Amino acid sequence: MSDELLAGARVAMLVEDEFEDRELTGPLDALRAAGATVTLVGPTSGAEFKGKRGVAKVTSELAAGAARIKDFDALVIPGGHAPDKMRMRHAMVDLARDAMDAGKPVAAICHGPQLLISANALRGRTLTCWPSIAIDVKNAGGLYVDKPVVEDGNLITSRKPDDVPAFSDAIIRALVSRKSEVGSRKSEVESRKSKV
Amino acid sequence: MSDELLAGARVAMLVEDEFEDRELTGPLDALRAAGATVTLVGPTSGAEFKGKRGVAKVTSELAAGAARIKDFDALVIPGGHAPDKMRMRHAMVDLARDAMDAGKPVAAICHGPQLLISANALRGRTLTCWPSIAIDVKNAGGLYVDKPVVEDGNLITSRKPDDVPAFSDAIIRALVSRKSEVGSRKSEVESRKSKV
Repeated sequence: MSDELLAGARVAMLVEDEFEDRELTGPLDALRAAGATVTLVGPTSGAEFKGKRGVAKVTSELAAGAARIKDFDALVIPGGHAPDKMRMRHAMVDLARDAMDAGKPVAAICHGPQLLISANALRGRTLTCWPSIAIDVKNAGGLYVDKPVVEDGNLITSRKPDDVPAFSDAIIRALVSRKSEVGSRKSEVESRKSKV
Repeated sequence: MSDELLAGARVAMLVEDEFEDRELTGPLDALRAAGATVTLVGPTSGAEFKGKRGVAKVTSELAAGAARIKDFDALVIPGGHAPDKMRMRHAMVDLARDAMDAGKPVAAICHGPQLLISANALRGRTLTCWPSIAIDVKNAGGLYVDKPVVEDGNLITSRKPDDVPAFSDAIIRALVSRKSEVGSRKSEVESRKSKV
């Protein structure tokens, strides 16, 4: 994809220890290649986090407690053992809830939806996840389906590392469509202004 | 404790990869020291499983699909990442459900209650667990409390590795009290027989 496609788009990607390596690096690389600015948001800033497979290693750039959803266009939650740790961080739970409340694209893969359960944000939503937590998603009021990628309004979900290409594409599409919506709202306002 | 205390008691202990080392070896050693026969029940028999901290390594002795709850007096579910894998094994979910239905002591620590959520066995029960899954327990109809060990009828639960001594003691007490109940029922039957 062109590196101009997502120019100006700002994405917050949550990170904690033992993330599923490809579920973090896959969307991260795809979003950056499409021109988005991705900020790694951890429990603290400047801390190193390792993937559960020992392949990827990243450093957080912003603390969740200092992150405001108004500064981002989308939130990405990778899987692995990381979401089990994220859901014990109040600032991460709050950020996920704020993103859902704001209707901004929220993309969660594998065990990522565990954070959205803790944010009580799944009631009435259709989504997919790693099968072990499907019952937790259902008990939280979500409708679980088994598909590589599920899009329900602003919510984008996938099941596992093999789904990463489809997951990344869906996030990019959502950001492009938001950009064009915002763009058309802006030009509407401008054309109305010019008519006045 | 005396090695006669639990003579004749048979305990099934579930095992899967990445169990929390002390949460498996602690109760295992305590139960064996008290004279119980503990069988390690895995997805298959004769397979090796490693603890998530790389300290403990055990070999399963029985496949969950071949295990019958009538052959055991209690079921133990260690924590760590293992329960996330156990809940995807139908035979393990069934075994946990059968143990709960039979009213036999079921002891789960840390993430262990995830298996009981998958068995739909927590509705109306009071229990504790690792705090990250407290909301999943609540959404499954359980009442979550934060204590080192919680006993609600046949259900024994604990939160983390530090709770292991209290957790092991509670399992032993439950087996001793069951043994004396069964013993007193037997002597009642015999005394009634001798009266006839």
